[in-house]
Amino acid sequence: MSILIRGGTVVNVDTEFRADVLCEGGKILAVAAQLEAPAGAEVIDAGGLYVMPGGIDPHTHMQLPFMGTVTQDDFFSGTAAGLAGGTTSIIDFVIPDPQQSLMAAFQQWRSWAEKSAADYSFHVAVTWWDDSVHRDMGTLVQEHGVNSFKHFMAYKNAIMADDEILVNSFSRAVELGAMPTVHAENGELVYRLQQALLTQGKTGPASHPLSRPPVVEAEAAQRAIAIADVLHTPLYIVHVSCAESLAAITLARSKGQRVFGEVLAGHLTVNDSVYQQTDFAQAAAHVMSPPFRAAHHQQALWQGLQSGNLHTTATDHCTFCAAQKAASKDDFTRIPNGCGGIEERMMVLWDAGVNSGKLTPSEFVRVTSANCAQIFNIYPRKGVIAAGSDADLVLWDPAASRTLSVKTQFSRGDFNVFEGRQVRGVPTHTISGGRLAYQLGDLRAVAGAGQYVKRPPYSAVFAAMDKMRSAY
Amino acid sequence: MSILIRGGTVVNVDTEFRADVLCEGGKILAVAAQLEAPAGAEVIDAGGLYVMPGGIDPHTHMQLPFMGTVTQDDFFSGTAAGLAGGTTSIIDFVIPDPQQSLMAAFQQWRSWAEKSAADYSFHVAVTWWDDSVHRDMGTLVQEHGVNSFKHFMAYKNAIMADDEILVNSFSRAVELGAMPTVHAENGELVYRLQQALLTQGKTGPASHPLSRPPVVEAEAAQRAIAIADVLHTPLYIVHVSCAESLAAITLARSKGQRVFGEVLAGHLTVNDSVYQQTDFAQAAAHVMSPPFRAAHHQQALWQGLQSGNLHTTATDHCTFCAAQKAASKDDFTRIPNGCGGIEERMMVLWDAGVNSGKLTPSEFVRVTSANCAQIFNIYPRKGVIAAGSDADLVLWDPAASRTLSVKTQFSRGDFNVFEGRQVRGVPTHTISGGRLAYQLGDLRAVAGAGQYVKRPPYSAVFAAMDKMRSAY
Amino acid sequence: MSILIRGGTVVNVDTEFRADVLCEGGKILAVAAQLEAPAGAEVIDAGGLYVMPGGIDPHTHMQLPFMGTVTQDDFFSGTAAGLAGGTTSIIDFVIPDPQQSLMAAFQQWRSWAEKSAADYSFHVAVTWWDDSVHRDMGTLVQEHGVNSFKHFMAYKNAIMADDEILVNSFSRAVELGAMPTVHAENGELVYRLQQALLTQGKTGPASHPLSRPPVVEAEAAQRAIAIADVLHTPLYIVHVSCAESLAAITLARSKGQRVFGEVLAGHLTVNDSVYQQTDFAQAAAHVMSPPFRAAHHQQALWQGLQSGNLHTTATDHCTFCAAQKAASKDDFTRIPNGCGGIEERMMVLWDAGVNSGKLTPSEFVRVTSANCAQIFNIYPRKGVIAAGSDADLVLWDPAASRTLSVKTQFSRGDFNVFEGRQVRGVPTHTISGGRLAYQLGDLRAVAGAGQYVKRPPYSAVFAAMDKMRSAY
Amino acid sequence: MSILIRGGTVVNVDTEFRADVLCEGGKILAVAAQLEAPAGAEVIDAGGLYVMPGGIDPHTHMQLPFMGTVTQDDFFSGTAAGLAGGTTSIIDFVIPDPQQSLMAAFQQWRSWAEKSAADYSFHVAVTWWDDSVHRDMGTLVQEHGVNSFKHFMAYKNAIMADDEILVNSFSRAVELGAMPTVHAENGELVYRLQQALLTQGKTGPASHPLSRPPVVEAEAAQRAIAIADVLHTPLYIVHVSCAESLAAITLARSKGQRVFGEVLAGHLTVNDSVYQQTDFAQAAAHVMSPPFRAAHHQQALWQGLQSGNLHTTATDHCTFCAAQKAASKDDFTRIPNGCGGIEERMMVLWDAGVNSGKLTPSEFVRVTSANCAQIFNIYPRKGVIAAGSDADLVLWDPAASRTLSVKTQFSRGDFNVFEGRQVRGVPTHTISGGRLAYQLGDLRAVAGAGQYVKRPPYSAVFAAMDKMRSAY
Ligand SMILES: [Zn+2]
Ligand SMILES: [Zn+2]
Ligand SMILES: [Zn+2]
Ligand SMILES: [Zn+2]
Ligand SMILES: [Zn+2]
Ligand SMILES: [Zn+2]
Ligand SMILES: [Zn+2]
Ligand SMILES: [Zn+2]
Repeated sequence: MSILIRGGTVVNVDTEFRADVLCEGGKILAVAAQLEAPAGAEVIDAGGLYVMPGGIDPHTHMQLPFMGTVTQDDFFSGTAAGLAGGTTSIIDFVIPDPQQSLMAAFQQWRSWAEKSAADYSFHVAVTWWDDSVHRDMGTLVQEHGVNSFKHFMAYKNAIMADDEILVNSFSRAVELGAMPTVHAENGELVYRLQQALLTQGKTGPASHPLSRPPVVEAEAAQRAIAIADVLHTPLYIVHVSCAESLAAITLARSKGQRVFGEVLAGHLTVNDSVYQQTDFAQAAAHVMSPPFRAAHHQQALWQGLQSGNLHTTATDHCTFCAAQKAASKDDFTRIPNGCGGIEERMMVLWDAGVNSGKLTPSEFVRVTSANCAQIFNIYPRKGVIAAGSDADLVLWDPAASRTLSVKTQFSRGDFNVFEGRQVRGVPTHTISGGRLAYQLGDLRAVAGAGQYVKRPPYSAVFAAMDKMRSAY
Repeated sequence: MSILIRGGTVVNVDTEFRADVLCEGGKILAVAAQLEAPAGAEVIDAGGLYVMPGGIDPHTHMQLPFMGTVTQDDFFSGTAAGLAGGTTSIIDFVIPDPQQSLMAAFQQWRSWAEKSAADYSFHVAVTWWDDSVHRDMGTLVQEHGVNSFKHFMAYKNAIMADDEILVNSFSRAVELGAMPTVHAENGELVYRLQQALLTQGKTGPASHPLSRPPVVEAEAAQRAIAIADVLHTPLYIVHVSCAESLAAITLARSKGQRVFGEVLAGHLTVNDSVYQQTDFAQAAAHVMSPPFRAAHHQQALWQGLQSGNLHTTATDHCTFCAAQKAASKDDFTRIPNGCGGIEERMMVLWDAGVNSGKLTPSEFVRVTSANCAQIFNIYPRKGVIAAGSDADLVLWDPAASRTLSVKTQFSRGDFNVFEGRQVRGVPTHTISGGRLAYQLGDLRAVAGAGQYVKRPPYSAVFAAMDKMRSAY
Repeated sequence: MSILIRGGTVVNVDTEFRADVLCEGGKILAVAAQLEAPAGAEVIDAGGLYVMPGGIDPHTHMQLPFMGTVTQDDFFSGTAAGLAGGTTSIIDFVIPDPQQSLMAAFQQWRSWAEKSAADYSFHVAVTWWDDSVHRDMGTLVQEHGVNSFKHFMAYKNAIMADDEILVNSFSRAVELGAMPTVHAENGELVYRLQQALLTQGKTGPASHPLSRPPVVEAEAAQRAIAIADVLHTPLYIVHVSCAESLAAITLARSKGQRVFGEVLAGHLTVNDSVYQQTDFAQAAAHVMSPPFRAAHHQQALWQGLQSGNLHTTATDHCTFCAAQKAASKDDFTRIPNGCGGIEERMMVLWDAGVNSGKLTPSEFVRVTSANCAQIFNIYPRKGVIAAGSDADLVLWDPAASRTLSVKTQFSRGDFNVFEGRQVRGVPTHTISGGRLAYQLGDLRAVAGAGQYVKRPPYSAVFAAMDKMRSAY
Repeated sequence: MSILIRGGTVVNVDTEFRADVLCEGGKILAVAAQLEAPAGAEVIDAGGLYVMPGGIDPHTHMQLPFMGTVTQDDFFSGTAAGLAGGTTSIIDFVIPDPQQSLMAAFQQWRSWAEKSAADYSFHVAVTWWDDSVHRDMGTLVQEHGVNSFKHFMAYKNAIMADDEILVNSFSRAVELGAMPTVHAENGELVYRLQQALLTQGKTGPASHPLSRPPVVEAEAAQRAIAIADVLHTPLYIVHVSCAESLAAITLARSKGQRVFGEVLAGHLTVNDSVYQQTDFAQAAAHVMSPPFRAAHHQQALWQGLQSGNLHTTATDHCTFCAAQKAASKDDFTRIPNGCGGIEERMMVLWDAGVNSGKLTPSEFVRVTSANCAQIFNIYPRKGVIAAGSDADLVLWDPAASRTLSVKTQFSRGDFNVFEGRQVRGVPTHTISGGRLAYQLGDLRAVAGAGQYVKRPPYSAVFAAMDKMRSAY
């Protein structure tokens, strides 16, 4: 089956231009000024529309197990919701328990993900260390297409990685050509602040942001950057949420260090006043880590995207329903962390970013797909509209408006973190692997249609860093 | 006539890949894994070579008149030398005298440039202000393909633009969709330091850098950035030479301001010890503004390129012979300013940048052509290897070495600012406008083969800034 | 007549301690744990009170002529109001018109000031340049006790000093051992913004802050700092009002440059919402330059005081009545600039600074008198409680509260910029030149009781800078 | 016995002035323009000399046990050497082994120190944590005059404090009104770098600085600052040696955080070329942590002193002889760390600081005694020349010169880290506790003449921070 997209404005990371796009066999066959429709091709009129690479969300948690339950969106519903929002790939997380085999956890997640409606891949978390972890990292990279490993610097007494684990794992990753990534919050300080707040009787969700102030995030970001600097590894920091950790990234980058930053659509647009709501369910629904921040941080984060000091936009999509959130009403530290957003990310980014002049359309592509594909080494397979690339595209109507709401979302669950937000600029069609998966409100997601995406190690940056390392 | 480049590794700003490249009629006709050679096509074996967009030097002064004489390289010899080094386009400067009509000066420079061997374009300097200047700026943009205007913040009592001129001209430029650019040095301070040094009897070339310390450059850079910020215009700063002005750019960019920085191959690799030479001719040969700097500035400038806070690499190619430099032996302020480099820029950048791991090959393309083409709105016509682009390419042998020297250069004149420097990574073939203009030491430059390149106004960044401006 | 202050806590810049203080003949005679009251001495019980050096306000405009009228407070009423607030000295400004002789202007201001109730001194403004200005600067320093010169970087077409004047005057000042000071705003940019706003019909006081955004102040601060750096002079920047110019000072100081910053009590505590008031009189009453700023700037300014990057606190006391402010209702650029504060400065500083823990009592003394006395070289005559110093003191009750209001102020005029502000920590007694000038609401100011304070040149910092300069 | 110092220029932190100084009973009895010599008083002619507070060295390790031996200087010889150099007080360190009782260690050090020739006090290190440590901290503060606790962030597998210990101890310290201090180096990273270098066969002293690069220090400094920020405690960072950790302090202070920095005379004046010496003994003699740094760091450290972002100057005096240093020739990680300097500190500071114009004489006093006395709450007992203060003074001849050398030093041992350095500005007399302890080369140190100095808790900064803390 082939699809011809006719008359749109193609937007790539480096330029935009009028062109027709022909998709066939799951791939983009041609991009040219004027293309003939092959026999039987579905022709989509893209007049007045932008044609952009499908979004890649580098940070999701579908079907995440949590205390005997599981998040609302599984790999099918979550990726399907992504398709409805123009996102055609995700990178999710395999999170082994301490002492659990990395390979076993990886196989577990792989099996859960088979029903995905869109393409998917996995970061694997390193939550403990021994020789088997060292060995499994090699197996994952060399045989299973994993090229990034995640480390949680928070969550003391659970999955927190201390400096010793970080040093071991970063060292191992770079020798494999794989990217170390971190959730940057100082777990010791979070723990103390949590204990202090609970001791003072401040047990509600309003305490959540107080227990994780910006300095706690900045400290961890700086520490991870220092470790990467000493070991001469690149580094990717997930969900940068505050001016202070962005400043640490900006400084490191200004010295030539190869540090990459991810920012969530939520952190860019929602502020910490949400925790002041008296309704427990509303406040608890916003509990995620890092928390939503005071408004001036959002300005800083946008500036980070504009300046190229932040590189990717994600969601940390991890949805719990009100009942799950309410399991621990008298202890904010036990409210399950997470919000959604995979369906809304690109609309929110376009509306707040492109409509305001913060981002050009090419820069929008840069931060919604191209940078992610380059950093995680699946470009130009993903992240660009060019002959030979995967046929993952979104058609975008910059003039159409929509009001985001739980009532109209495809994501499961009873909450929408962007509830009531009005956006201008929405997807009209999403093509995933050459299939028309979404069209004007009609979601045609197919369980299992998504492919597991193997990501090869040694992106270009590793060759450059090898030269640098050899100078020491 | 067509040329097929077979078996090379194509490097673009976003990726590198194995492909054949077919050029015909001055354009790139196809880029694909395996291409058939058309009848009569010249086939070049690019096995083991990189195939990259031809370099663009955004800052040259060919055939510049100076006190009754003229620089050594005219538009033919200068662009020819560029071809020998892999550079296929230049943007030179039209510099009207105060009170001289911009249009008259533009026509003058156009006529001088007709003999160019490679493509060329012009920034036009605004050195004074009245209604005719305002009008001529419009004519130049709308009818003559000029989309950038230059301002000298130095050179008091000559072509210096004070804040009033800057404000007038920046305002006019942005309404035309044209980029304001500045030579950033505080002319008042330079003048005072020059007078003080002369008064102290320090009349030789060693005084040149003392009269133009980094703070003098940083002050002007910050002032230009402030003016651009207040007027909501983009800004391009030529020849950033020191850590302090780079810091100003980095800070502005980190706040989301659209400021672009250019750095010279000379400032990246030559330090201020050259002014300590006792031989007048050697010291004087290095007199240019801003001067060469202490070594730690070079480290900073490389970090600027790595981090994306500096965008383009240029040469300020402006060559005087020893006799011209020696006209004022007892007054360093009257030594004609300028050095060469158009022929060596790409080799110096590759050797010091890519071989050391500071830059990946794609990042090399970014700073030698792609960014320049994007900023000055001639991308993807220039700066990328893609079907439809101009057939301006360079084939690059990363394993070949060469020693740079005045003895072997194609540039005219009796001096080479990179004399004796050994480089690994050299051009083997340069294709300009679809013609093979250089091959393994054989320069086949043709006077008049170069085309004037019209640059359209309103690059994507202007649309974004319009949205921002309308918010105020 | 002698006064014995018994049982208070003396606070100096370096320490605080319990001591009695004996004043006689206008001087402090002794400071010791237990002092006998001489015969006839007035004994003041300072139990529970702090005994601190009288405040010095380094920035006032008493009796300033303006378009045929004059500010509300003359030298008597203004200094008297200061005494009621614990301030015992001012440094006012002599502002010659361009082309007016500095000596003539100085004599004029001296005569106006003879009725002062408290000690006073003068900064002299350099608003133009020729040989007579150069000569008069020498006369003022060597014969008249002036050791600081002021430069307005704003007020285009009036008293604005361009770079040429700044360079001339800074150079002259440093050779005389006198401190250059600047009002830092880029006059060209202010002018353009004013014209743009008027053109758009935005003629009311709400346009005032829009015409003088932070970047306009920061640009000028950076330029003055760069000039001082090049010429190796110290620099004092008056009324720093925003985070950006503070950042410029902080950076320069972190590199060892001797730059000093002054901040106004108003800028520390009042934000720019005052310009949004619909009542013209209220909004216009707040028109001063730099304008009041968005709230986050106040946090930055406090941090500047805490960190020692800002040194003095002042008021720019310059009071116009509503009728004067209303003379130009349809052109905000013609509203006379100025607010009061000399009476409230110390209370506002104590309440917002010491009560919140931002400042210790010694740090309060540092920023209300000691630093000023050191920078302007009248320490330890002023700014410390020690034997031999002038008997200028304030007794302070940290437990007493007051509501500031135009209704209860001693200052003339119909407006109080701190109207309604409640403060804890108020002066109970002020001793000026050994006289009890204020006691518990009873103001005993005497016209002509204040002395002109000659300030000698070459404070310690000049000797250090001479050594640095000689190294170049 | 009394001493009258006649005709000198007294230098205090806030000012300098001509005065006589009378000492009696171990105290300063009077400071005045003209004093009569009491009967029997020794009169010292201080014409042409500065009279300054005796130096305080806040960081020494006298008589430190190390692997069965002990450092060369014991408490007598070390403090005596200090007297010869104008230093009249030290603060040394009690360093309990992990699991050793703090009280037991404290008593041990107290007994060792009884023979001190000059006044002394102790920081106590917290190297482990349990309830007894918590309790002993209280005892030490409340009963034994300890008001500061030290933490080593380096020295993994030995005395390293991890984040959990830091958080526990900082929290406890602030509730006691005691200052937390840290040796800031990331022990995990140091360990990894050491192992990597040893594995590569790089076993000599040249590897020492490679195993402790600036980033390792900066990381720890930032982490300690973050912890102090979260817990609202002040913080004192010992031996800041590099631009990067200074930058962290400068940034924190610019935000109002109360962070204090100490710098060693050695780090200010000696660079890392010392490790390149082929003579093992010479290179090993310079092994200390943090190591000596590349030259640009020294410029930064001086700027830190000038700007007030660094507060105290120390030596980390800890002297091993060549035989001790040579015990581990094939493993640089086992070379005992330490250099001397207590005798030379003030001369080196004056010569490099005051003679160059970086510091005024008052600023010299600030960084050699006054700041230290204020931070550790023994001001004005120490650190100022005023009636009532301890009679600890140094007379200083700014015109006299000396060449520093192991051959002429009073310190024990076979090495002088300032060997061959010529200085201008030397002590002529040192008065310690009212005794003339050094005069023109004649050292009259008396074992046991030094007193243990109890330092009370809750300096002024704690009251201010209490107010801040209560706001949270
Ligand atoms: Zn996370
Ligand atoms: Zn997550
Ligand atoms: Zn130039
Ligand atoms: Zn030029
Ligand atoms: Zn002013
Ligand atoms: Zn003023
Ligand atoms: Zn240490
Ligand atoms: Zn130590």
